[in-house]
Amino acid sequence: MQQILQRASSTARTSRTLIIQQVQRLLSTQLEFTKDRYNIDRGKFGTLDDTHYGYFEDLLGKDRVIRDPEECEAYNVDWVKNVKGMSKCILKPKTTHEVSAILKFCNTHNLAVCPQGGNTGLVGGSVPVFDEIVLSTTLMNQIISVDDISGAVVCQSGCILETLDSHLAKYDLMVPLDLGAKASCNIGGNVSTNAGGLRLLRYGNLHGSVLGLEAVKADGDVVDCLSTLRKDNTGYHLKHMFIGSEGTLGVVTKVALQCPTRPKATNVAFLGTNSFQNVLKTFRKSKHSLSEVLSSFELIDAQSLNVVTKHFGKQCPISQHPFYILIETHGSNATHDEEKLHSFLAETMSDGVVLDGTVSSDPSKIADIWQLRETITAALQHDGYVFKYDFSIPIKTFYSIVEIMRERLGESAVTVCGYGHIGDSNLHLNITLKEYSEEVHGKIEPFVYQYTSQMRGSVSAEHGIGFRKSKYLQYSKSASAIGLMKSLKQMMDPKGILNPYKVLP
Amino acid sequence: MQQILQRASSTARTSRTLIIQQVQRLLSTQLEFTKDRYNIDRGKFGTLDDTHYGYFEDLLGKDRVIRDPEECEAYNVDWVKNVKGMSKCILKPKTTHEVSAILKFCNTHNLAVCPQGGNTGLVGGSVPVFDEIVLSTTLMNQIISVDDISGAVVCQSGCILETLDSHLAKYDLMVPLDLGAKASCNIGGNVSTNAGGLRLLRYGNLHGSVLGLEAVKADGDVVDCLSTLRKDNTGYHLKHMFIGSEGTLGVVTKVALQCPTRPKATNVAFLGTNSFQNVLKTFRKSKHSLSEVLSSFELIDAQSLNVVTKHFGKQCPISQHPFYILIETHGSNATHDEEKLHSFLAETMSDGVVLDGTVSSDPSKIADIWQLRETITAALQHDGYVFKYDFSIPIKTFYSIVEIMRERLGESAVTVCGYGHIGDSNLHLNITLKEYSEEVHGKIEPFVYQYTSQMRGSVSAEHGIGFRKSKYLQYSKSASAIGLMKSLKQMMDPKGILNPYKVLP
Repeated sequence: MQQILQRASSTARTSRTLIIQQVQRLLSTQLEFTKDRYNIDRGKFGTLDDTHYGYFEDLLGKDRVIRDPEECEAYNVDWVKNVKGMSKCILKPKTTHEVSAILKFCNTHNLAVCPQGGNTGLVGGSVPVFDEIVLSTTLMNQIISVDDISGAVVCQSGCILETLDSHLAKYDLMVPLDLGAKASCNIGGNVSTNAGGLRLLRYGNLHGSVLGLEAVKADGDVVDCLSTLRKDNTGYHLKHMFIGSEGTLGVVTKVALQCPTRPKATNVAFLGTNSFQNVLKTFRKSKHSLSEVLSSFELIDAQSLNVVTKHFGKQCPISQHPFYILIETHGSNATHDEEKLHSFLAETMSDGVVLDGTVSSDPSKIADIWQLRETITAALQHDGYVFKYDFSIPIKTFYSIVEIMRERLGESAVTVCGYGHIGDSNLHLNITLKEYSEEVHGKIEPFVYQYTSQMRGSVSAEHGIGFRKSKYLQYSKSASAIGLMKSLKQMMDPKGILNPYKVLP
Repeated sequence: MQQILQRASSTARTSRTLIIQQVQRLLSTQLEFTKDRYNIDRGKFGTLDDTHYGYFEDLLGKDRVIRDPEECEAYNVDWVKNVKGMSKCILKPKTTHEVSAILKFCNTHNLAVCPQGGNTGLVGGSVPVFDEIVLSTTLMNQIISVDDISGAVVCQSGCILETLDSHLAKYDLMVPLDLGAKASCNIGGNVSTNAGGLRLLRYGNLHGSVLGLEAVKADGDVVDCLSTLRKDNTGYHLKHMFIGSEGTLGVVTKVALQCPTRPKATNVAFLGTNSFQNVLKTFRKSKHSLSEVLSSFELIDAQSLNVVTKHFGKQCPISQHPFYILIETHGSNATHDEEKLHSFLAETMSDGVVLDGTVSSDPSKIADIWQLRETITAALQHDGYVFKYDFSIPIKTFYSIVEIMRERLGESAVTVCGYGHIGDSNLHLNITLKEYSEEVHGKIEPFVYQYTSQMRGSVSAEHGIGFRKSKYLQYSKSASAIGLMKSLKQMMDPKGILNPYKVLP
């Protein structure tokens, strides 16, 4: 594993993706079908026959209708090898017109469809549960236009996030979104799951930065909201229905994004402190002193860092403390930003809030520091079985669930750790055991969900609901809100052909 | 008028509000009823009787049910004295429970309701057309919580924007929205109309900064989406249905906002240049050089500035040019920001892109410069009759419509000018005549709407559709999108009691 880690050294982000991919391959791929693991019945949808295949092959050509079982496998299993569908038909449209024709046909013939982008989702939303047709957007990868003055960028939904970002670099622009999965995930999937990521704190969420989109409804109707304007108050703001609804209300085919200027300077600080209260004080101060240049504020507790040093032999660049903070700045003037960051560090240290810290503007050192944060997920796999949670919790009580679970589980857990985007109140609680135990599972769930609900937190901060979390939706949404969601689904997709078994309970 | 202008000198924003209010009072208030001016039929709603009044008075007490015709007048006429309803009943709830009870009752008895915040809208969306009950949120003005670490602020929808902002100043926070109407407008109205304003360029739109909201549906059902979390991907993102739907899908009762840190330093530059191409070059450069501190980028053409100097005797602080640019920066370090702005000015002048310019960090000089921009609206009234448009147009062709209209109208117009938030591609095209002329009107409309539509612009950038623009919706939205809007309205409010005659054609 250390060799894998060392080989993949170009950038922290890319190496994290590679490491996780290789860990995945090391894990058993002998995954049971979802339908056999979960107590779930197939919906009353039609079954594919030769007439259907004939229509698709006429529309797309044979090479874009995948029927070979081995080739279908990759589209049936999710990235974290957690769920497995049994689709026998993968369709690869290239245009909105083709998506529209496919959906119209499927709606008429009552055939269920699972839209799929880069298939990097973490909650089983992007793979079929039974034999749904997979509608893959991977060939819809055209970048349509870049307005280098306004920053409005239009592309098809199958563009890979990293590819789009590299293209924008030529215009000194960037995608206002950065994820571990950037090398594989599709922009349409990002929009459909309302992906958050590492720099939401600075660049905001997709509801703010999607200028417009084009989506196809279950009945094939194309909804054109592909505005490239920052201000457009003409009627209901329909595009937001498709942002975060995980492909259950429509298939996103094109996206217009407001892209910010690429920063000329990036700096990183890695700090150590002795209490969660001091983490909060540091965050508060960073918002006032670093303010407009702050691009990331991440928490790593000692237990999280410990798994990285233990399993991957990484070194902590500062002395040991109960809590570590990773701060990143993005700005237009390197000297100004370094001055701000150094004076911030000096002040927080002289106040006794931060006990140790290092600041760097050197890209390779920055990558090393980011690796400490980004390899936690992979390192945790080495402990044994991992329970993973992605909660949002109001910031003042952000860390309490980690302490409560540590106390509640005692010696029965190998590691109980918390890390994440504290700047967005987004906590990744992870609990590892030597091996899976139903008894320990019962001590963890549903308690963690109930606790998060009591704190008015979210049981899924950025990963979404997908297939695996639909039963937990009630912990974060009222009965009235869930009722309204069901009405929306009924209005948009009365036959329920779009991504069935997902999101709604 | 100059005396009025001089008296109201505390800040540019407040004075603009005062000036406009006083101009309004100078104008005739003998306004015809909307129903008599427009060819429109009353919907088949019930008519208020004593039983209904009895219910409302039991619920709210007599002092919060306004029936006095003179007192009702202010709620029946819009801010720009353009439309006038004939409501005989103004209800002033204080709680969500009361709003819910009112709507449940009205829905059962088929009584139409016009929700109203600060009544500062510009498209006749906030006043009744016939005898709709006015549901005023002005007494729902409690600030519920401020999280000084995360910046999450929760308040009732009737809070006045400026009052909320002043309260937040104690925590070094600010509302991420600034409008000319800030002294009167309500945050719930801002959310319902998706207000944009002067600094959207920096702080983003309300779809990005509203963390959560609570709204009451037409049937009285309370939809609780009052999350204070930046990341919450649990099911459909329902709150966005209420943002920008102008009170036709529900009444917003509480709002949670993500509030940024209040800037420690504000600077303003006023620049002159000789072509629209150079305005674009200046904007592009400002995004790269001022980047994270840029908070406003406004265009004023010579014709716009001319009306301000002519009618209000204001002086232009630099030599005369065809185009002027107002740039504002918000930052955490005054020295850094001034350095950035001075070096930006030096570079753009040495490149010959900017021909003259002045920079200031002095609050009174900043207010003077902002007045040049913010008194254009009031000054134009002195020309005679004003045709006002609020378009978004893709930035590269932003100014062309002004030149086209100048050519098209020739001597028949007094002034054809363009100014606005070019950083957001939001143009305020204004055309003045000595007095109203149907012939000239016919040369302007529908041509300006058709042209904007051809450019894939928006016929209402930030003002909304309301009553007055519903017939123009088709110029910015496809038939399929309008169809979907109608389905949403039908789902949310099947009897159509909420803000009838608004938004949808």
